[in-house]
Amino acid sequence: MPELRKDPVLGRWVIISTERAKRPKDFKYTPEKKIVAPELCPFCLGNESSTPPEIMAYRAPNTQPNTAGWTLRVIPNKFPALLIEGDIKRRGEGIYDKMNGVGAHEVIIETNDHSLDLADLEPDQFKAVVHAYQERLNDLKNDNRLRYIMIFKNFGAAAGASLEHNHSQLVAMPVIPKRVIEEMDGAKRYYEYRDRCIFCDMVTQETKDRKRLISENNSFIMVCPFAPRFPFEIWILPRNHKSNFEDATDEELNDLATILKDGLLRLKKALNNPPYNYIIHTTPITLRGIDFYHYHLEIIPVLTHIAGFEWGTGFYINPTPPEESAAYLKNIL
Amino acid sequence: MPELRKDPVLGRWVIISTERAKRPKDFKYTPEKKIVAPELCPFCLGNESSTPPEIMAYRAPNTQPNTAGWTLRVIPNKFPALLIEGDIKRRGEGIYDKMNGVGAHEVIIETNDHSLDLADLEPDQFKAVVHAYQERLNDLKNDNRLRYIMIFKNFGAAAGASLEHNHSQLVAMPVIPKRVIEEMDGAKRYYEYRDRCIFCDMVTQETKDRKRLISENNSFIMVCPFAPRFPFEIWILPRNHKSNFEDATDEELNDLATILKDGLLRLKKALNNPPYNYIIHTTPITLRGIDFYHYHLEIIPVLTHIAGFEWGTGFYINPTPPEESAAYLKNIL
Repeated sequence: MPELRKDPVLGRWVIISTERAKRPKDFKYTPEKKIVAPELCPFCLGNESSTPPEIMAYRAPNTQPNTAGWTLRVIPNKFPALLIEGDIKRRGEGIYDKMNGVGAHEVIIETNDHSLDLADLEPDQFKAVVHAYQERLNDLKNDNRLRYIMIFKNFGAAAGASLEHNHSQLVAMPVIPKRVIEEMDGAKRYYEYRDRCIFCDMVTQETKDRKRLISENNSFIMVCPFAPRFPFEIWILPRNHKSNFEDATDEELNDLATILKDGLLRLKKALNNPPYNYIIHTTPITLRGIDFYHYHLEIIPVLTHIAGFEWGTGFYINPTPPEESAAYLKNIL
Repeated sequence: MPELRKDPVLGRWVIISTERAKRPKDFKYTPEKKIVAPELCPFCLGNESSTPPEIMAYRAPNTQPNTAGWTLRVIPNKFPALLIEGDIKRRGEGIYDKMNGVGAHEVIIETNDHSLDLADLEPDQFKAVVHAYQERLNDLKNDNRLRYIMIFKNFGAAAGASLEHNHSQLVAMPVIPKRVIEEMDGAKRYYEYRDRCIFCDMVTQETKDRKRLISENNSFIMVCPFAPRFPFEIWILPRNHKSNFEDATDEELNDLATILKDGLLRLKKALNNPPYNYIIHTTPITLRGIDFYHYHLEIIPVLTHIAGFEWGTGFYINPTPPEESAAYLKNIL
C-alpha cells in the first residue's frame, strides 16, 4: 500500500510509492534519457490485454471491452501512485503524520494512433478527449473517500512522460493538495476584498489590454499570464464564470478542445515540438458553484531547469516577458 | 531593470529578467544540453578580467584584487537576476502588482581548480567556502532595502548550472519569498501549539530513531527527511537551536563544512556523481534569535522530472522510502 506522508513544516504531502518502488541501487545518474519504446506498445490497438482491464472506452458498436475497435480508452495506471482499494487510516509516527495511499490513478489513451502528437489529432477526436476527462471526473466524484481530482498531461521525457504513445492522466486524492488550497485561498482573499472573482477580472483585463492574448473563441481566452514562471507559459480561461470543470457544457468542452489544440499547435511550431505539461485547475469535488474561483487550464513548456533558487524561494526567474511570448505565439500560425 | 511581478492568486513572485533576456526565437527545444565549456573559463586562475570586479576574495598576501593568487573569489553575477542599483518602486498594472528588480546576485567561486568537484575539495578549502557564505550574508544584511538572502548551489546541467567550474550563488531579495514565509508560518504554528521548535523536535526524534540518520558530528545531524520530495533528498540540521545561519560560530561552520562534504561524497559514490541543488534555509535578515525556526541545509539530487502532477498539486511522488535511501547512504563509504 502506498503511504502518504506529510512534511511537518510545510504541510506538503508526499506519496511514498510502493507500486513503482525503486531500490536505492536502481538509481545511477545518467544524463537525459529518451523514452525507450517497448517492443510492444501497451497503448496500441491489438495490445489491450497488456494493460489492466479498461474502465471505459469510446469504441465502435458491437466491439467488446479490452479488444480492438476503440478510439479512446481509459485504464487504471499499471503502476498507480495511489490504490483504489482500502481505508484511509490516518496515523502518527512521533511528530510526523501519515495515511494510506488511497485514491485512483487512471490513464486516458487519447488516440489509437501511436504516431500522432496530441496537437495533430482530428478536431473531433480532440473533443472526445476533453469529454472523457469530464466523464471520468463525474464518475469518480461519487466516491466519498476522495477530495480532489487532478487531470493532467505529461508530453516528452523531460516533462515526465514514460511512454511515447499519447496519454493523459487522472489522479484522485483523499486530501485537497496544498497547491489547490493555496489557489483557493488566494482567490478567496481577493473576493473578500472586491466581491469579484479574480479570474473574471483577469479575463476582463486581458481581453481589454490584448497584449498577452494569444487567441480566443466563444467560451475561452488563451493568454500568457502576467507573472509566468516560464517562457511561453499559457493559460486558458473560460470567459464566463464557472467554478467546476465538471459543470462545463458540451459546447464549452468543444470550445476548450478547439483552443487547447490551437495552443499546442502554436507551441509545437514555435518551439520545435517541446516537452510540456498541462493541468486542469478546478474546484475540489466537495465544493460546487462557488463565486470566488474559476476553473482553467495551464500549459507549461519544459524549456528551462528548476534550480536551487526556485527550490529555496518559490520564486521563478523567467528570461522572457509574457508580452513577447504572447506576440510570438499569436503570429506563429 | 529586471521586473518583479506577483501572481495575483498565489502571491508567487516571478523575476522577469532583463539582464539574461531571451527573445522568443532563441527558444527551440533541443533534448538535454550538456554544459558547453567556453574556450576560456572565466572562473579559472588568470582569467580574472573576464568577470565583473571581485567583491571579496581569499588570496595570498601581497596579491592584488582581480589578479591570480586567490583560492576563493566572490564576484557579481555577470547576468544578474536582480540589480544592486535602484529603488524598489512598487506599482500596479490594473489588477496586477509589480516592482523593480532590486537586490544582489553574487557568485562564489569555490576553488581555483577547474577539475575538482566540490565533494573533492580539501577539508580546509571546503571550510573556507562555508565561511565565505556567512561573510557575504553578514555584509549584505546591512542593506536595508533587502529582506531575504538565499545561498544555494546548482551542480550539473540538469540542476541548472550553466558553467562547469564549481560555484555557488547568493541572491538577496527585496521581499521575503513565498516558500520562506510558508516555512516560517508552519514552524510558528507548531511552536504555538507545543512551545517547542519543530526542527529541535526533528533532531530529537531522528537521533533516537536513527532509521533515517546518515551521519552526525558535534554540531549537526544529516538525515533523509520523513517526507522527502525525491529519492536521496538529504537535510543537514544543527543539533542545537539557532535560527540564523549568520549566527553560526566558527566551530559550527567548520562542522557544517565537514558534514556537507561527507554528504556530497556519499551522493557522488551512490549515484554516479548526480546533478544536485543545495540550499541554505535560514531566517529572514529582519528577524534574529527567534524560538520557532532553526536554520538548516537541504540537498536535492536531480534524478527524476517534475511533471504535471507535481505542478498541479504541490504533492510529490517518491518511489524510494527515505529509510532505504538513508541506509544506503550510511553504508556507501
